[in-house]
Amino acid sequence: MTYALYYWDGLPGRGEFVRLALEQAGAAYIDIARRQDGTDRMLEIMEDDRADAPFAPPFLKDGDLILSQTANILFYLGPRLGLAPESEGERHRLNALQMTIADMVTEAHDTHHPVATGLYYEDQKPEAKRRAADFRTARIPKFLDHFERMLSANPAGPQHVIGHALSYGDLSLHHLLEGLHYAFPQAMTAYGARWPHLEALRTRVASLPNIAAYRVSDRRIPFNESCIFRHYPELDGIETGDDE
Amino acid sequence: MTYALYYWDGLPGRGEFVRLALEQAGAAYIDIARRQDGTDRMLEIMEDDRADAPFAPPFLKDGDLILSQTANILFYLGPRLGLAPESEGERHRLNALQMTIADMVTEAHDTHHPVATGLYYEDQKPEAKRRAADFRTARIPKFLDHFERMLSANPAGPQHVIGHALSYGDLSLHHLLEGLHYAFPQAMTAYGARWPHLEALRTRVASLPNIAAYRVSDRRIPFNESCIFRHYPELDGIETGDDE
Repeated sequence: MTYALYYWDGLPGRGEFVRLALEQAGAAYIDIARRQDGTDRMLEIMEDDRADAPFAPPFLKDGDLILSQTANILFYLGPRLGLAPESEGERHRLNALQMTIADMVTEAHDTHHPVATGLYYEDQKPEAKRRAADFRTARIPKFLDHFERMLSANPAGPQHVIGHALSYGDLSLHHLLEGLHYAFPQAMTAYGARWPHLEALRTRVASLPNIAAYRVSDRRIPFNESCIFRHYPELDGIETGDDE
Repeated sequence: MTYALYYWDGLPGRGEFVRLALEQAGAAYIDIARRQDGTDRMLEIMEDDRADAPFAPPFLKDGDLILSQTANILFYLGPRLGLAPESEGERHRLNALQMTIADMVTEAHDTHHPVATGLYYEDQKPEAKRRAADFRTARIPKFLDHFERMLSANPAGPQHVIGHALSYGDLSLHHLLEGLHYAFPQAMTAYGARWPHLEALRTRVASLPNIAAYRVSDRRIPFNESCIFRHYPELDGIETGDDE
């Protein structure tokens, strides 16, 4: 069965968490929005007058089944791709982790869009600076301390975030760290070696053969300023001297 | 087995989605934080140096298993409480709905805390007014139109949001509507009869015998201004004439 992934073209975004799992597993999938008319086909499904039309991308089609919400897609895919633990309890713990990562992703997005998703960044810059300052100083350490503890306290060792084998939680933490370093390089550097197990995981996942091959392929869309993780120096705590 | 629910005392908050499911099912549960020293016991678990310490309340203990993240708790409880559909596909659709409700709850929270959760509302009032205006005019219709369509397009009829029987999704939509009407009564009234199936569901759930009994019990904490849904007239689009 070939999976069909629907997401916005031109940015890694939330779709990237699903792509990384599919790529690591070597699963057959089509990245619909990157095809001719793909975005139109995605919007048609979203706007269709049907009970299972998704609220927002990313969503995944597996045959007739439409799955939306990133963590929900991964909860479904995890066992099928060999990227989830065996026990029900650990699967729910992994699901909670993925949802907490999603919460942090939303907060990272809101650093540049604290007032309204429908407005340009330039129209909410003063608010963005205040929100980003709180994100850098309060939220980044709160979330990353938590994830670091999951690794350091894992009875099976700090190589994996849940249990003794690679799961989609490891892939997602890798991508989260990549995004934070892209968007907030100065702030992340200033934290130094505060999260050694997370940083080791980030590097280890990048060097997995399937992930390494994906990263240099044209299937991967680099981070950019249309994405959730945006590098605006003024939101990274750097004085740019521009007016607001 | 008696479930133990951990949440902040004094507000319905995200814990209420779990409470409603437990109450409707008549399940045995203890609301830990409402007991003597309950909040201290909750914080102890969160701060413990263990791999399964939750990031934030609510969390649920079922024996030794700790479940966190509201939608994740309900995904686990749903089948056990008879409040989830039979098929795997429909369960994942219900999970996606619950996560979308959670997204809207976060956005409702951010109307009064758009800059930082750690600051007082009074310290972010101008930003709150801008964000709340966008929430009222753009986000409320976007989310509620979607939920209304799920009801109206349900092949089994608009009495339930998924399938032909009551699920935790119905209970959660009820509570979401209650919260929106509490926080934004003028804005919700102005929308008139735009969401007839949602409003009918809201009323129907309130009159389920177990829910009706719960609503008049002292186990229920009313909405208040410590909660996610806060009634600040100026955020409901009413000119209060105060300075910022």
